[in-house]
Amino acid sequence: MSAAVSIRGRDVVTLDTFRAEELLHVVERARAMKAAPPEPRLQGRALAMVFFDPSLRTRTSFHIAFSTLGGAVVDMAAGRDLWPLEFREGVPMDGPADEHVRDAAAVLSEHADVLAIRSLARRRDWAQERRDMVIVSFQKHAQVPIFNMESVLDHPCQAWGDAMTLVEALGDVRGRKITLTWAWHPKARSLAVPQGVATMATKLGMDLTVAHPEGFPLDPGVRANLEHGARESGGSLRFVHDMRDGLADAEIVYAAPWGSIHHNHDPEAEAALRQRHVDWRVDATAMARTQDARFMHAMPIRRNVEADDAVVDAPGSLILEQAANRLHIQRALFCEVLGR
Amino acid sequence: MSAAVSIRGRDVVTLDTFRAEELLHVVERARAMKAAPPEPRLQGRALAMVFFDPSLRTRTSFHIAFSTLGGAVVDMAAGRDLWPLEFREGVPMDGPADEHVRDAAAVLSEHADVLAIRSLARRRDWAQERRDMVIVSFQKHAQVPIFNMESVLDHPCQAWGDAMTLVEALGDVRGRKITLTWAWHPKARSLAVPQGVATMATKLGMDLTVAHPEGFPLDPGVRANLEHGARESGGSLRFVHDMRDGLADAEIVYAAPWGSIHHNHDPEAEAALRQRHVDWRVDATAMARTQDARFMHAMPIRRNVEADDAVVDAPGSLILEQAANRLHIQRALFCEVLGR
Amino acid sequence: MSAAVSIRGRDVVTLDTFRAEELLHVVERARAMKAAPPEPRLQGRALAMVFFDPSLRTRTSFHIAFSTLGGAVVDMAAGRDLWPLEFREGVPMDGPADEHVRDAAAVLSEHADVLAIRSLARRRDWAQERRDMVIVSFQKHAQVPIFNMESVLDHPCQAWGDAMTLVEALGDVRGRKITLTWAWHPKARSLAVPQGVATMATKLGMDLTVAHPEGFPLDPGVRANLEHGARESGGSLRFVHDMRDGLADAEIVYAAPWGSIHHNHDPEAEAALRQRHVDWRVDATAMARTQDARFMHAMPIRRNVEADDAVVDAPGSLILEQAANRLHIQRALFCEVLGR
Repeated sequence: MSAAVSIRGRDVVTLDTFRAEELLHVVERARAMKAAPPEPRLQGRALAMVFFDPSLRTRTSFHIAFSTLGGAVVDMAAGRDLWPLEFREGVPMDGPADEHVRDAAAVLSEHADVLAIRSLARRRDWAQERRDMVIVSFQKHAQVPIFNMESVLDHPCQAWGDAMTLVEALGDVRGRKITLTWAWHPKARSLAVPQGVATMATKLGMDLTVAHPEGFPLDPGVRANLEHGARESGGSLRFVHDMRDGLADAEIVYAAPWGSIHHNHDPEAEAALRQRHVDWRVDATAMARTQDARFMHAMPIRRNVEADDAVVDAPGSLILEQAANRLHIQRALFCEVLGR
Repeated sequence: MSAAVSIRGRDVVTLDTFRAEELLHVVERARAMKAAPPEPRLQGRALAMVFFDPSLRTRTSFHIAFSTLGGAVVDMAAGRDLWPLEFREGVPMDGPADEHVRDAAAVLSEHADVLAIRSLARRRDWAQERRDMVIVSFQKHAQVPIFNMESVLDHPCQAWGDAMTLVEALGDVRGRKITLTWAWHPKARSLAVPQGVATMATKLGMDLTVAHPEGFPLDPGVRANLEHGARESGGSLRFVHDMRDGLADAEIVYAAPWGSIHHNHDPEAEAALRQRHVDWRVDATAMARTQDARFMHAMPIRRNVEADDAVVDAPGSLILEQAANRLHIQRALFCEVLGR
Repeated sequence: MSAAVSIRGRDVVTLDTFRAEELLHVVERARAMKAAPPEPRLQGRALAMVFFDPSLRTRTSFHIAFSTLGGAVVDMAAGRDLWPLEFREGVPMDGPADEHVRDAAAVLSEHADVLAIRSLARRRDWAQERRDMVIVSFQKHAQVPIFNMESVLDHPCQAWGDAMTLVEALGDVRGRKITLTWAWHPKARSLAVPQGVATMATKLGMDLTVAHPEGFPLDPGVRANLEHGARESGGSLRFVHDMRDGLADAEIVYAAPWGSIHHNHDPEAEAALRQRHVDWRVDATAMARTQDARFMHAMPIRRNVEADDAVVDAPGSLILEQAANRLHIQRALFCEVLGR
């Protein structure tokens, strides 16, 4: 790794804005930090977290990473602790919103050294939803680095931690076969995790297969970026619509549920379409088609629905390493972005 | 106290798992810590608190104890910050629960060095309720020490702090007369406090009288443990159903309201039974039967309902010392369990 | 500034209890602290914050100020994390309240070194509302310094930060012309900010004009204090009922919306009266009457309703400096009150 690689002062909003060597540089920093007790490198610094949606792993990994390094953390729920926000520019604010996002972002930038935002998809038409208005608005108006704690399109810190887990498990990940497979879930879950993971895998030169039922594509803009990323890294990318085909010869199976962007604004139509694919469940038979693959999942996982206990708890399962590495990658990211 | 006494790495889930010398060892550590400003012994360590029920004293004592010793604290509400949890093993998770407790506990164990859980009784049949499923499940699946911040059956940190208050007030507590008396309360309150306090008193060899109306027994399993504890410690245990009899000659009066386990699943029947005992209130007349007893209560207290202002605010009242000692015992417990 | 000036151990509940030299002493400390990285002066100390109402700037400034100085912070919502409180003395607590404020305040005083409370007006008759029962009750029963994070009558930390902003912008503020102008807002907002700011301006000897529509007076008791303060400081105070008159020759324009105390208990009558003054909006034409005045506002601000974007974002606008200085004044206040 070149000593010249630096992400100091950068926003961590989408993985697509980082180069492979930057991803790997932070992974190496995280591995070094994992091996030693935390030092108070962030003393006197403050992180403000704003949740528009709930969170367990992301909340604890961000909060504990920052504060065990000596920093101060404020954890706020948007609907409870903040005033309702206006996102449009130049309008008379005589509706429900008490504060403009430009002011909230500017004020938080005066009090904190880093902001972190979680805001998932609502039920808008996808063409509008994919603009990722909340995180993009905070990014536009903040004067300090912004971290994405999961947005409509991406979950970069999850994927960055997964890169660390892959490096720990495989060493050099270039050319290794990873299958990202859709799994059935009773709810229409976010595309952020699969899109972040796919971005990471193609950036790092892996051979990525994405398996999903017809009607459950990734976002077209993200897909274009994936194709570009795979070409640039020397990796590969293919899409299949049959889980068994997708798992053949995989070294890594990454399961993720996600909803149909075609029906993002129409929950009933989305549920009806999704319901036709309850058989997309990772069981022992499915895993038998792989090269004794390691199993990955970002959690929370619906056991015996997305994947069977026998798969989730198999010796090759990496799900706990993934969760653990969220903490270590987060410590490294905070130190790298703040130049500490 | 033998230098060999250690509770390092232990769970603090029920007081019954600790020996008298362990209780007193931590009390002595807490008294020493109370006399000096807090040192940053927990720097780099993290505590994750999960509340299934509200809390004031327990929240502030845990949070402030850990963080004034330099540690990091994440405070989460189960219904708001966590995914709904599944507690059954091996079932297909196609219902409301998004995450299994085994995964939540395992992940929190990767991010934090200690977990603390509060989960009180719901309206189940007592035979099921008394299994204390939430705290027991976290204890089973966590890889780090678990603290009980009050469960169905026990509130060990309250009782441990009360042991400290008793030692401060009485010196050697063996053979001293303590009466734990039921008090009327408009709600069916938890049995955790009286059961924790009774466990502590019998373990420490006190002469314990428990006074409560017919129909408001302690849990039968806890009662069996109390009898065993009193025999082993050389203390004594008796139950009476008349408050005035119970208070005769007491040196300590500990008032606590609790609901009827016979009607735990049937709130209306429970309320009707409880309503017949509104006269169980600690007033000056009742206190006059004691040996000028000190008054104790875990708070929150319903003034002039459970006990009169004249009793609560009397010079001999120990309620504020009890609340203050929650902080000191907690600091000692964290340091002892984490070996700092 | 005399070295003998000290506010150690004081409550910061209303600005009226402080002398001009005390206000300026803390402003100077804050300016010195702003110029240097935070030091861990509050290590081992704890702040407990109790919010009866939501907060952004106050929450982050208090929390981050205290914790970046090394202290521990517990942030609680009254309705969620605390038991419902009783405020009356001597009554049988058989209603909804589970805990008396005297006990909550006493217990928090045992666990924390500072308490901070936010509790705004409800819909009571103003004669009762203005007694500011919540903050006054905590102040009465706490054993440690109390900070007001905004109450019915005052928002002293906002006003103290504004004093710092004025000193930074103007140097010696004595005799400088400041106009506090009412602005229309779709909700009946609190009088705490304008009253705190007016108290600060008169204490510091500024020439204060308060412009508001008929029917929207400040509290009569506060008004009497303002007159006293202006006389004592050599400043001046006048009230006008026309925004344009009020702004003439101003060097500082401070906009604030507030409700009518005449109708505090009757929201519909209040809204009807307020609705007649939608033209009280600070626009470029209004600002043209001033001496090229700087614009101030405590935020959140309803853009293009209270004031136009062109005013809020003008080069002379001080709103971000105000928000930033909340953090610095808070650090200075905590250090001064705790004698660190």
